[in-house]
Amino acid sequence: MPNPTAAMLVIGDEILSGRTRDANMHYLAGQLTARGIDLKEVRVVSDDADAIVAAVKALSAGFDHVFTSGGIGPTHDDITADCIAAAFGDTIDVRDDARALLQAHYDRSGQDLNEARLRMARIPSRACLIDNPVSTAPGFSIENVHVMAGVPSVFQAMVASTLPSLTGGAPLLSRTLRVMRGEGDIAGPLGEFAAKYPALSVGSYPFQKDGVYGANLVVRGQDAGQLDAAMAALEDIFA
Amino acid sequence: MPNPTAAMLVIGDEILSGRTRDANMHYLAGQLTARGIDLKEVRVVSDDADAIVAAVKALSAGFDHVFTSGGIGPTHDDITADCIAAAFGDTIDVRDDARALLQAHYDRSGQDLNEARLRMARIPSRACLIDNPVSTAPGFSIENVHVMAGVPSVFQAMVASTLPSLTGGAPLLSRTLRVMRGEGDIAGPLGEFAAKYPALSVGSYPFQKDGVYGANLVVRGQDAGQLDAAMAALEDIFA
Repeated sequence: MPNPTAAMLVIGDEILSGRTRDANMHYLAGQLTARGIDLKEVRVVSDDADAIVAAVKALSAGFDHVFTSGGIGPTHDDITADCIAAAFGDTIDVRDDARALLQAHYDRSGQDLNEARLRMARIPSRACLIDNPVSTAPGFSIENVHVMAGVPSVFQAMVASTLPSLTGGAPLLSRTLRVMRGEGDIAGPLGEFAAKYPALSVGSYPFQKDGVYGANLVVRGQDAGQLDAAMAALEDIFA
Repeated sequence: MPNPTAAMLVIGDEILSGRTRDANMHYLAGQLTARGIDLKEVRVVSDDADAIVAAVKALSAGFDHVFTSGGIGPTHDDITADCIAAAFGDTIDVRDDARALLQAHYDRSGQDLNEARLRMARIPSRACLIDNPVSTAPGFSIENVHVMAGVPSVFQAMVASTLPSLTGGAPLLSRTLRVMRGEGDIAGPLGEFAAKYPALSVGSYPFQKDGVYGANLVVRGQDAGQLDAAMAALEDIFA
């Protein structure tokens, strides 16, 4: 049975302007691969309601799971929750369960649950809350979309809260052989090797360092025994 | 007049599996912003022909320019050039101009222009070549899509070869004010500030470090004088 599929939607002008380098994509990719969920596509869009709604609809229809990051804080430019509600035709307002979490958090820290902070309790009516052990303000899941914060420590905590509830497949295993030859020399025998192992995915990732050309040959599959046998054959080819 | 828009398409299983952390998106974002071209969307797709073709068609239709990275090397998993040709209904074969570049390069280095290396001369018939001063094998531009290598040093050289030929707009300038208060305290006055400056984009990017909450307040616009005046007002608000 094929593994479940996933897509990620990163929301934020700061990534697209080059101000901030996204860190969440790489983290989520590793977590999903380990759980046997195949990340098939990532999109990065700006803080624009039409762009967010269109991307959520397309990715939600195309993949088993969608993970979003960014745009669920208390400031005026945080519009993700409203866009998700719009994408699913749901209503959105301050919800009692989310408000209670925030009230307890700010009571403990002696801060005021003001109007801005209360925006973080705006949750679509049909959503389930995602626990945020770092800073309390919850994410949420609606249908197959999991809505998370952009701050990496909070994003990672929310992924940890969500992934155990999702059914994974067989984790994708990978083995790497580093070959210090140019890809042009590698390509012929590598192509023949790949054709012999149709159940495995075979990739070549070239690098150039200090004037020397090489490539990491990466073989991926779900069966450890088959992978090991293939790697032995690959090492023979490029010994 | 609004700035030209752009999208980026990153092609490669190695990014989606978490094996490699993409570096080209952040680089391109900074370069485009400096040139006054607004990067509006990034997509990352796997080495899958249908996914690549669909993404190229969608992004080419939706934005003024599209930049792709990855999948134009000599190995069997490099399928980008064929997919681009398919997306534009063009033919593709080894082209004499690209072959001549490669032949001269490998003659100089005393290597054989074998069948695998010759794959890098496969270029759609209607495309213009993009110069690659790092490792010779060219990228290409067809209609509004610029097809570049995934290796960061080569990608960056190809961006440098391409950007000067594109008409840019007014560069987007940005100023940042770092405020050591939680976003919940900042959000109210910041929202009022943003409403007063509709020509500027105002974003809040929270962070948490050593248990202390803060946010970078970023104001973006094309008019330096207006930006400076707005920043003075912002500093007064959060002094």
